[in-house]
Amino acid sequence: MNNPPRQEKPYKELAPIHDPRDELCDFEIQENFKRFNQVNEIYCRGQWDARIRSDKVIDWFKSMFITGINVKERDGFRLKDFALKNAGWSGANLVIQRSLDRGRTDGFLDNIAEYEPPNQDKVTVDDPEQMAAEMKQVCKFFGADIVGITSTDLRWHYSNSFDAKKLEEKPHGIPEGLNNTIVIGTEMARDVIKTYPSATAGVATGYGYSKDAHTLQCIAAFIQGMGYRAAASLNDTANRIPYAIQAGLGEYGRHGLVITKEFGPRLRFGQIFTDLPLRHDKPDKFGVKEFCQICRRCSDACPPKAIPESKPQSEIINQSNLIGVRKWTVDAEKCFKFWTDQGTECGICIRVCPYNKASTNWYERLYFTFWRWLAGTSLRGLALWLDIKLGFGGPKSSSWWWKKGSGW
Amino acid sequence: MNNPPRQEKPYKELAPIHDPRDELCDFEIQENFKRFNQVNEIYCRGQWDARIRSDKVIDWFKSMFITGINVKERDGFRLKDFALKNAGWSGANLVIQRSLDRGRTDGFLDNIAEYEPPNQDKVTVDDPEQMAAEMKQVCKFFGADIVGITSTDLRWHYSNSFDAKKLEEKPHGIPEGLNNTIVIGTEMARDVIKTYPSATAGVATGYGYSKDAHTLQCIAAFIQGMGYRAAASLNDTANRIPYAIQAGLGEYGRHGLVITKEFGPRLRFGQIFTDLPLRHDKPDKFGVKEFCQICRRCSDACPPKAIPESKPQSEIINQSNLIGVRKWTVDAEKCFKFWTDQGTECGICIRVCPYNKASTNWYERLYFTFWRWLAGTSLRGLALWLDIKLGFGGPKSSSWWWKKGSGW
Repeated sequence: MNNPPRQEKPYKELAPIHDPRDELCDFEIQENFKRFNQVNEIYCRGQWDARIRSDKVIDWFKSMFITGINVKERDGFRLKDFALKNAGWSGANLVIQRSLDRGRTDGFLDNIAEYEPPNQDKVTVDDPEQMAAEMKQVCKFFGADIVGITSTDLRWHYSNSFDAKKLEEKPHGIPEGLNNTIVIGTEMARDVIKTYPSATAGVATGYGYSKDAHTLQCIAAFIQGMGYRAAASLNDTANRIPYAIQAGLGEYGRHGLVITKEFGPRLRFGQIFTDLPLRHDKPDKFGVKEFCQICRRCSDACPPKAIPESKPQSEIINQSNLIGVRKWTVDAEKCFKFWTDQGTECGICIRVCPYNKASTNWYERLYFTFWRWLAGTSLRGLALWLDIKLGFGGPKSSSWWWKKGSGW
Repeated sequence: MNNPPRQEKPYKELAPIHDPRDELCDFEIQENFKRFNQVNEIYCRGQWDARIRSDKVIDWFKSMFITGINVKERDGFRLKDFALKNAGWSGANLVIQRSLDRGRTDGFLDNIAEYEPPNQDKVTVDDPEQMAAEMKQVCKFFGADIVGITSTDLRWHYSNSFDAKKLEEKPHGIPEGLNNTIVIGTEMARDVIKTYPSATAGVATGYGYSKDAHTLQCIAAFIQGMGYRAAASLNDTANRIPYAIQAGLGEYGRHGLVITKEFGPRLRFGQIFTDLPLRHDKPDKFGVKEFCQICRRCSDACPPKAIPESKPQSEIINQSNLIGVRKWTVDAEKCFKFWTDQGTECGICIRVCPYNKASTNWYERLYFTFWRWLAGTSLRGLALWLDIKLGFGGPKSSSWWWKKGSGW
């Protein structure tokens, strides 16, 4: 960093730190809560922080764009696996590249810039409930699997964004007055994820970003065409996890991911901030917190032991954590070091999570519905035992995936 | 046009006009066969041909990018319908815009330019059959619904492409030596298509292009990462219809579209030309030609009567047709005039085609499998009667679609 990150005041000196929905969301916000500064995100630190930026980290960044780095003669790490992983990123790369010459990294450090200003003609919205229903229909048409709507909550917005060119912090640039937030969730690939931590499985992440970027752009363009403002946000601008929970899409899990009814933690989130009038959804609970309290599948399986085995706590582990929230907190430094040591990303915690069940046919759907119900009762211990006994959670070899013949 | 289109010699003076697969594909190529010149495509003529380029045509082109033109206070033509349609194009627009400053219209007039040259390390391909199976897996992963592979056939490549800036013809620019062609088919939206000819239904086309562009880029990037060349082609460079038939994806229908087993004519095609060694597929017939001979659902339903009621013939109707193939030929001028008169596109022929059946659950799939079998027997008349009797083919109102609640 050319300049040290600005020390932000505790949030309570700026605005109220509590929100009526916090109890419904199980958010335990402490008095010392501060907004997160994007410069402290582990990927940003990989660019400016000498304690993180090793040769392996530099190679890892390069390997996202250049196929051939980190290739090994080992199942899941061959050239074709890396070619697949990087091909998955093509759509996202197109979005990133679009505004690079204006000093923006759309979708990762900066929100996805509008194509055009909003249409001057405006659709009149008499009924925000109907508008929300139509909006969800449109989001699903453009590829969202689940959609929730909530109010914009500045607590989750980064205090500053990271400028990758100047290696400095900068304002995040979301305009004011976009008081509604649409949160979309899109399923990550069902089968290839079973091969984590292979390079092959990295395509689930890359293609996930590409698909999301595409979906978000279409949704934002629709809102702009209707005459309203819309800022689409992928990995930039705000913490996605609390937004997804507030929008009713799921609960917080031990691995720091949102667990949804539909896909467990096997999905990605994106957001659109807008001034289009929309009715908000309510948070929803189905027993995840209590289940995660007895389950250690993710923390047991995590190779660098980055996931906590203990209870939720408010102490941070390092500067890549959010200050002032009592929760399970992942050690992002350990996690990222494992990624860069092996030369690709990891998602073992997604793979082994008992809520990660793919329902492709009626009997799987039936079993999963039953299982999720059981996991939400006091018999959750039985549900966990059953999950282990039935052999869910993999892993599968990459050569198994390549031979499969069906795509996803 | 600044210069008149070059008069190409009959193809037989360049190369053999017949191919061993033609009989399997029901291609009847005449001695006077010429390759198609892209400048004669109706959308290109809309830009340079004074006989086509009316004020309505100019408005139609503008309305693809500017939401608000052609809006009417009528179901299916309101501002939100146009906003939806145009939002669907966002992904494709990003691909188009990418190379505009280099005088290219990627995906529409020019093939989709490579991101990077092929990787210098090359995957060894010992078994083109296995490679083809893996390639299909990858295509499906990246969003293709059906995939076929055939050899590159220069008969279907445009003799020249159109330069929209200079209003001139130019070489189409696909490099030589890309002898294998991967054809992908992606399903068009199932329900909104029932509202054709509304503006709402136009989203099926726009989003279809966006999704295809995205899928094709990912596939091409995968091949390039494997060390081989790949030129991805959407609406540019070559006739997609004969390629899809040669690759075994379906048969030619009265409406000039390929009818597939999986989606009937309700899908889009894209291609990747490559030097990656791949085993080829064989053309496949399931009785479409014989069925189309007795069925007139598309030609009866076509508002401007652009679809022939008569037998296949080799005479062309106007310069937007391919010369020297005996087939059902659509009058592109009449078709396009209807589009621009109503200010959006039309796909009634897709909607009413009896092969356009959406199979979303097991009993629909069962019925459709039975129906397709029946349509392929001498009882095809009964199959047609049944289709009409059961009320397939719509239309539905746009307000029905907006209220539906499920996305696709």
